[in-house]
Amino acid sequence: MLVKPYERVDDLQHGGLQIIQNPEWFSFGIDAVLLSAYARVKKGGNVVDLCTGTGIVPLLLSARTTSDRITGIELQADVADMARRSVALNHLEGRIEIVTADVMDLSGVLPKGSVDVVTCNPPYFKSQAGFYNATEIKKISRHEVALSLEGLFKSVSEILKPNGNFYMIHRPDRLVDIFYWARFFKVEPKRIRFVQPKVDALPNLVLVHFTKNGGKELKYDRPLVVYDDQGQYTDEIFEIYHQASLTAFEDNRQGTNVEGMGG
Amino acid sequence: MLVKPYERVDDLQHGGLQIIQNPEWFSFGIDAVLLSAYARVKKGGNVVDLCTGTGIVPLLLSARTTSDRITGIELQADVADMARRSVALNHLEGRIEIVTADVMDLSGVLPKGSVDVVTCNPPYFKSQAGFYNATEIKKISRHEVALSLEGLFKSVSEILKPNGNFYMIHRPDRLVDIFYWARFFKVEPKRIRFVQPKVDALPNLVLVHFTKNGGKELKYDRPLVVYDDQGQYTDEIFEIYHQASLTAFEDNRQGTNVEGMGG
Repeated sequence: MLVKPYERVDDLQHGGLQIIQNPEWFSFGIDAVLLSAYARVKKGGNVVDLCTGTGIVPLLLSARTTSDRITGIELQADVADMARRSVALNHLEGRIEIVTADVMDLSGVLPKGSVDVVTCNPPYFKSQAGFYNATEIKKISRHEVALSLEGLFKSVSEILKPNGNFYMIHRPDRLVDIFYWARFFKVEPKRIRFVQPKVDALPNLVLVHFTKNGGKELKYDRPLVVYDDQGQYTDEIFEIYHQASLTAFEDNRQGTNVEGMGG
Repeated sequence: MLVKPYERVDDLQHGGLQIIQNPEWFSFGIDAVLLSAYARVKKGGNVVDLCTGTGIVPLLLSARTTSDRITGIELQADVADMARRSVALNHLEGRIEIVTADVMDLSGVLPKGSVDVVTCNPPYFKSQAGFYNATEIKKISRHEVALSLEGLFKSVSEILKPNGNFYMIHRPDRLVDIFYWARFFKVEPKRIRFVQPKVDALPNLVLVHFTKNGGKELKYDRPLVVYDDQGQYTDEIFEIYHQASLTAFEDNRQGTNVEGMGG
């Protein structure tokens, strides 16, 4: 039985992809969708998604890229099990593997310098700040209880190949921590794209593209605006949500070896 | 003789303020004006402007704030001499002092932990990047030949009082270096404001407000747009350029103890 009675199955609107979620736990949001559209994976490249949760980013990357070596790392065994069942539900066991492991210590999980692309939609709240959720699983999913940015960048630096790429989505108020630990562990920020709810609003998310041992120059993409003046998704967001499989198809047909939204 | 034959005197349009500049050297730009409008100085506070050049920031701060202890630090003796003559030309010797010193070593110049507010419009280009200017003075003014961001933040951290404030304008492509060295020397970035030429353009300058030993949370101000669709200054820029002395006057009259554009 792939789906348990208290779980629900949602259509991802990406070429028939479905995902299993537990309504009592944390459900994926727009951040995971934006991250999967931001990441670029060259043909033949392998991908590791850290803090994978429900497996949403590996599932979307399977539609957006041709990579057949996508690994999702999840600390919580129950959550990893659910993600593994979503992979099976979509018959993607040949391309996606979900591994139960601690992102803070990947030494026994992945060889050093072995990964082309890392993605991460990490917990957003600082351990000491904000409210805690009712259940332990929700707590670990939303807070940096089990994960610090220091530990995250240390692991990313260890598993990436030289010149490998890391894509992250996070909250703009953590940008100093992000840049500090990125530079510290030589995972250099190369491009930044703020995400804002409206054209004249302040950013509430930020996409950052890092390169292991990359040169020291940060480039900016114009902000990604989520809603138009009428409160509807902008064209760009609409395309990210609904055109993913089509985009991947067109990329393949044109023979390009880089896929995704990028900069 | 305050003005030498090969120099020119410009009206700063700030309550009659004038500045001496050498057309062969580097003239002040919008960045110095924006920085002086961004900095906030409480009544009775002292200010140190690093890399002061022509003295433009101390001169503008004398119009925008009530501080009577404004110090400009300039490495190049000829440039410092010109700035000193601008101070005399405006009869501001009682409020502004120009000191010839190396920003990289202020130990014999300013007591540690003695400064309320530091400002800096530093050289923008990395030592190894870009073209060099014809003359040595231009070179030092525009490049980080004599100044690294590491050395700058080390000095700022040393001279600031606990919870003292630092305001800087720089290029957005250096934001990783800025955040890294700021965090390293415990001069925490608190607010950031990007400056962009047009409403839909990428930023080409960034204003950052740091606090010594400040808490770790970065806040964003909406971008400052320089030109409108017709290529004219936006209202906000027009006010910064032309309303400075009026603003300072109104601030004093209303009895507020914080002056400047701020966030």
